[in-house]
Amino acid sequence: MDELRGKIRIGVIGGGRPKAEFAALAYEVGREIGRRGAILVCGGLGGVMAQAARGAADAGGLTIGILPGSKASEANPYIHVPIATGMGYTRNSLVAMNADALIAVDGEYGTLSEIAFGFINGRRVIGLGTWDVKGIVPAATAEEAVRLALESAR
Amino acid sequence: MDELRGKIRIGVIGGGRPKAEFAALAYEVGREIGRRGAILVCGGLGGVMAQAARGAADAGGLTIGILPGSKASEANPYIHVPIATGMGYTRNSLVAMNADALIAVDGEYGTLSEIAFGFINGRRVIGLGTWDVKGIVPAATAEEAVRLALESAR
Amino acid sequence: MDELRGKIRIGVIGGGRPKAEFAALAYEVGREIGRRGAILVCGGLGGVMAQAARGAADAGGLTIGILPGSKASEANPYIHVPIATGMGYTRNSLVAMNADALIAVDGEYGTLSEIAFGFINGRRVIGLGTWDVKGIVPAATAEEAVRLALESAR
Amino acid sequence: MDELRGKIRIGVIGGGRPKAEFAALAYEVGREIGRRGAILVCGGLGGVMAQAARGAADAGGLTIGILPGSKASEANPYIHVPIATGMGYTRNSLVAMNADALIAVDGEYGTLSEIAFGFINGRRVIGLGTWDVKGIVPAATAEEAVRLALESAR
Repeated sequence: MDELRGKIRIGVIGGGRPKAEFAALAYEVGREIGRRGAILVCGGLGGVMAQAARGAADAGGLTIGILPGSKASEANPYIHVPIATGMGYTRNSLVAMNADALIAVDGEYGTLSEIAFGFINGRRVIGLGTWDVKGIVPAATAEEAVRLALESAR
Repeated sequence: MDELRGKIRIGVIGGGRPKAEFAALAYEVGREIGRRGAILVCGGLGGVMAQAARGAADAGGLTIGILPGSKASEANPYIHVPIATGMGYTRNSLVAMNADALIAVDGEYGTLSEIAFGFINGRRVIGLGTWDVKGIVPAATAEEAVRLALESAR
Repeated sequence: MDELRGKIRIGVIGGGRPKAEFAALAYEVGREIGRRGAILVCGGLGGVMAQAARGAADAGGLTIGILPGSKASEANPYIHVPIATGMGYTRNSLVAMNADALIAVDGEYGTLSEIAFGFINGRRVIGLGTWDVKGIVPAATAEEAVRLALESAR
Repeated sequence: MDELRGKIRIGVIGGGRPKAEFAALAYEVGREIGRRGAILVCGGLGGVMAQAARGAADAGGLTIGILPGSKASEANPYIHVPIATGMGYTRNSLVAMNADALIAVDGEYGTLSEIAFGFINGRRVIGLGTWDVKGIVPAATAEEAVRLALESAR
């Protein structure tokens, strides 16, 4: 497991009930993160979080899910390392804190809070069809999003 | 102190280093909250938080400051009830959670996170020169902002 | 409300289902805290927390309840300032952080965690029929407990 | 990484400045956890936490460190998955929440809080030269401690 140390961690944030196109995009983002040898961090539940984790796991990457509830078992089935917090949405701050850069895919107010915490923590935030917030770097494809995230995280 | 029970709590959120006009506006918002018999909740530090608390205290209202640090003594001098959290910006979630409605004055990314948590918690968020986020109810004056906040909180 | 600033805050910790004798003792502790002009801090729920808050409120003191849930309305009816956290038992740390000294009455494992956090934060912890932990200062009566707490908090 | 899913997680808790004998014992506990195929969870800093993580890593196990600060880089060098919280000692609750069973080695008040949270979360807590708290299962050796922890976690 020693090879995990020092790997870049990319957070993928987005809603629990995305439209089909965003679910597919989240999967691609996750897969690209895994392919590029980075670790995926997310909120551990469904929707964008589950699809991104599935993509990363399919590509052989490690997936971390920082959960709102107090039971690790609530993580989606693609999470390798579930972290229970019992803090509800307050855990959104910890998702952003544990990523070297963030990619937001679609998303509602929870995602908006994570975008804000990304900037508070000095992270680059890449956007794919998400909130139009000052500072977000837009990307056109999953591949571009991951490339931009990795650039800033190095 | 029994008269405090059941009073409406209005959160005032905004940055630590506002321009003079927003500092003055925050003071007016706080004063109006105090005048109307509501409790002011804020992040307890400087700038918009301090001016709103000063206004509320001047009008005889109670002020609560939910602090990022672990010492109650870091609160601004207008806070009657400081709550230390030791959680840094993660406490932003608690500011929103403890307000029946929120008024955002100016503000940077910390404020954006609090706006997001306001919506996550189902609160009305009133805006005075702040982030342009879907769902925010704009107000033109401090008085209007407090009126709109109180309406939704009842 | 300006008279609240700078007042000493005494935390009363203990279980939610105490035996009758400890419920009565918690009430006396709270009443003595109110009489002596200090603020009562507790976990905001039932049992020792509610009885101590009832006592403090009866004596004209201010009561703060730092709650595990995300709704202020879950506070017991004697709490003047409920603080919702949505963090479950993790909020026990915040109860200790917001008291200048602690008085433990009876109590189970939640109380033990608060005793530990009291010492972590450098507070004096007074014991009334509670866990026998190194460093706790035992008291024989509610009056003595409050006196010892106030001494250390000044 | 899929082999990580469903593995038992054992928390090792203890102080940052143990005597040499307890540092050595923590190493043995960690190594036994790794040998037995479980995941090690700890607070991520020095002393017992670092020695247990070193032992687990030496035996090929995965190590998770749930940190008090906001930077993953503060983890000891044996942590594979650092989780920053920015919550200070309040994170002790999360250490206990993320372990299926706990082993306490030596330790001061921080460890006492984690023991308490272990019981709050319904975990078995094994003791090696630690606090004498009702409910702790004493063990004589590292091997016995890990065996008892694994038994309860299954």
